[in-house]
Amino acid sequence: MNELKKLSVPYLLESADLNRDDIKIVFDKADFFMQNYKRGEKFSDLKGITVAMAFFEPSTRTKLSFDIAAKRLSADSISFASSTSSITKGESLIDTLHTIEAMGVEMYVVRHKNSGVPKFLQENTKGVILNAGDGKHAHPTQALLDSFTLYKHFGAVKGLKVCIVGDIMHSRVARSNIDMLKTLEADVKLCGPGTLLPRNINVWDCDIIENINDAIEWADVILVLRLQRERMESGILPSIEEFNRFYGVSLEQFSKKQDLVLMHPGPVNYGIELDYRIAPNKNCLIQTQVTHGVFIRMALLSLLGSDL
Amino acid sequence: MNELKKLSVPYLLESADLNRDDIKIVFDKADFFMQNYKRGEKFSDLKGITVAMAFFEPSTRTKLSFDIAAKRLSADSISFASSTSSITKGESLIDTLHTIEAMGVEMYVVRHKNSGVPKFLQENTKGVILNAGDGKHAHPTQALLDSFTLYKHFGAVKGLKVCIVGDIMHSRVARSNIDMLKTLEADVKLCGPGTLLPRNINVWDCDIIENINDAIEWADVILVLRLQRERMESGILPSIEEFNRFYGVSLEQFSKKQDLVLMHPGPVNYGIELDYRIAPNKNCLIQTQVTHGVFIRMALLSLLGSDL
Amino acid sequence: MNELKKLSVPYLLESADLNRDDIKIVFDKADFFMQNYKRGEKFSDLKGITVAMAFFEPSTRTKLSFDIAAKRLSADSISFASSTSSITKGESLIDTLHTIEAMGVEMYVVRHKNSGVPKFLQENTKGVILNAGDGKHAHPTQALLDSFTLYKHFGAVKGLKVCIVGDIMHSRVARSNIDMLKTLEADVKLCGPGTLLPRNINVWDCDIIENINDAIEWADVILVLRLQRERMESGILPSIEEFNRFYGVSLEQFSKKQDLVLMHPGPVNYGIELDYRIAPNKNCLIQTQVTHGVFIRMALLSLLGSDL
Repeated sequence: MNELKKLSVPYLLESADLNRDDIKIVFDKADFFMQNYKRGEKFSDLKGITVAMAFFEPSTRTKLSFDIAAKRLSADSISFASSTSSITKGESLIDTLHTIEAMGVEMYVVRHKNSGVPKFLQENTKGVILNAGDGKHAHPTQALLDSFTLYKHFGAVKGLKVCIVGDIMHSRVARSNIDMLKTLEADVKLCGPGTLLPRNINVWDCDIIENINDAIEWADVILVLRLQRERMESGILPSIEEFNRFYGVSLEQFSKKQDLVLMHPGPVNYGIELDYRIAPNKNCLIQTQVTHGVFIRMALLSLLGSDL
Repeated sequence: MNELKKLSVPYLLESADLNRDDIKIVFDKADFFMQNYKRGEKFSDLKGITVAMAFFEPSTRTKLSFDIAAKRLSADSISFASSTSSITKGESLIDTLHTIEAMGVEMYVVRHKNSGVPKFLQENTKGVILNAGDGKHAHPTQALLDSFTLYKHFGAVKGLKVCIVGDIMHSRVARSNIDMLKTLEADVKLCGPGTLLPRNINVWDCDIIENINDAIEWADVILVLRLQRERMESGILPSIEEFNRFYGVSLEQFSKKQDLVLMHPGPVNYGIELDYRIAPNKNCLIQTQVTHGVFIRMALLSLLGSDL
Repeated sequence: MNELKKLSVPYLLESADLNRDDIKIVFDKADFFMQNYKRGEKFSDLKGITVAMAFFEPSTRTKLSFDIAAKRLSADSISFASSTSSITKGESLIDTLHTIEAMGVEMYVVRHKNSGVPKFLQENTKGVILNAGDGKHAHPTQALLDSFTLYKHFGAVKGLKVCIVGDIMHSRVARSNIDMLKTLEADVKLCGPGTLLPRNINVWDCDIIENINDAIEWADVILVLRLQRERMESGILPSIEEFNRFYGVSLEQFSKKQDLVLMHPGPVNYGIELDYRIAPNKNCLIQTQVTHGVFIRMALLSLLGSDL
């Protein structure tokens, strides 16, 4: 691969940071790592580089994925699992960043419950910020790994009909996927109960499909979102049973259309948004997404970190 | 050493998984590491291999021991200290395993408060499960390091008279040691208060020695178990003082027999099951057990991990 | 640099452990690391050596600094963040130390809320104890990095006029700095409210400056201490506002004297002991202290660890 290729931005805060060329560079690099990864060997792209895993919101999957990616590139990974209590004001968050920066840390993988924190940090550091999820705003590495999974499965993303199903309104995964899929010229529609759709739906510029059966009929791909438990308990939904009946995907529905592809960012609430019996199906790409996630994060860490 | 030697099982769930030849292979490998370990050097047996430390029950000693063993073999070690709250059902435990597996993790060191969890996980993964203690069921690496300590001290385990003392009923250490010592043809007896002996004692096929003095008189080795604080508080024992008087080992008792060897899996409740003044004695092998533990775990990680 | 130079002590418990020659050796080694540190490379001073980070009191900055230092020297770093609940008695703390030692750990970076714990541990191990802060007693690596910062800024510490400002009485940073600065023949004075000065001030053998303006007028350097929140809430101080008015440093005061240098061990309570607008000033060396901290800790780990 051509090592001269660089991203047009020195960080990753949201899907819109990346143009089509950038996304192609990330995909090519992820592909390179996937093809050349050998058991018992390591890449040295980030040897001697310290990456801070700054997860201010609990995370198991995304943090492990970034951690494994960093280690495969020979980076030193330090964990900065601050209790939110000690760091409450933006002011002291910046102080903490500057302190860690003064220790020689150059890359920061940041998750925070407040939208905009990664951007705020990027504006105040010479280091590299990688957004690992901020509030309801963005989760760009999830969008990248989702699109990469489609790219590997279908050969191209352009023209694919993708329907995002579930709790669109509260989902940073939905937001980041819509932006990236549009950059890649997929056709994106949304399906979910009215109370879980964004209020100013025009801003999103996506058609709504009211019925899950219609969504499946239309789509090449359904991207099912996780229903957050707090949403179920907040009174926004009449009941879980009703959500499952109208927007959950059953094996019967999934099997009706032979080449239909199903994705989910995980962890899945089986029995709520998804029938457990769908999991082993070869077109259910949930495990593949996870595997691709590590290679996408290796690609980003390498591209953003290797010539700071 | 002959590198072609392999274990007859691709995992370690309980002592009974290993036959005499397997145990010999593990001991030889541990011996090899012990002889060839040099300060400032590392073995590369697990270079580029990711080992997940999945401790669902708190642990300091066993976790550190495995972690140090993994690092000495150049493995990448990731910690998966999930709160038991987020992973409550077997179903989601499997999902979590599959997710981590999809990230490229190949080995799992598992501790769980429920008996059978490691077996359940092994049945659902292509990776390697190493049981680091499950409920009251098994703790096979403890049994291996205990037998290895006897092997190094006496030259052989066969024919040794070993008495296990204390809370037999609730102890996975006792269970795993009985099985392994029998495989190695040691003569095993048990000593403890009636309320802390297993109910169907026939199943264990071990004689009971009622009195600690008789146990010491009979044994070459006494393996004293830790008295769990929760047992003391549960009403099973009339009082700690009484337990100490009848089943605790005093310096006077220990000193009566010159070559008597004492082992304990740690951490010791000094003053309860053991007199503090015994610790410095050369036949008190508690520290040696800990040292051997690292080499035994290196041996297992290397044997089970190097040709997955 | 001359690799034969060694410290006169095999551990670091307090500033008084180091004589002037020792301090010079540490500074030279830190300087060496600072000059020779190259992005993407590692030193191998502690390859294959396991360093235990034993922080029994919460710490983010000091722990990260030691952790990064250890990793840059290729050490294996294990974290031993025990809850204080499980280790309550000195007796069992020693048992824990001996257990970790038996696993092959050779160096221990220790923070504990009780003064004297590092000394107690050093007396009971063949390994190396590095005090990372114990109670109100000592924080010698902070004193070393502070003096190193002065040495790099002024070219020498001897003869410098240093005023330590704030909560002297409760501060291990103050104690360790006073001792080290005196060894290096700086002129040290103290400034703070009477309730936050040590009772037997004669023992400290330092003059008191009552007024912050007089302190600034006299000093080449003011070392401002963090005001612990628990002090504010304990009734020792009438109010935060009053502390800030009489002992906080404002931009106006700081700007009055062109070459005045300001240091602070961090984290700063901006608005209480320090005006936020001082931070960007080139003579405010807070970030520099943090950067030097990593190199000082690399120097200590290397000097104390490389020929155990």
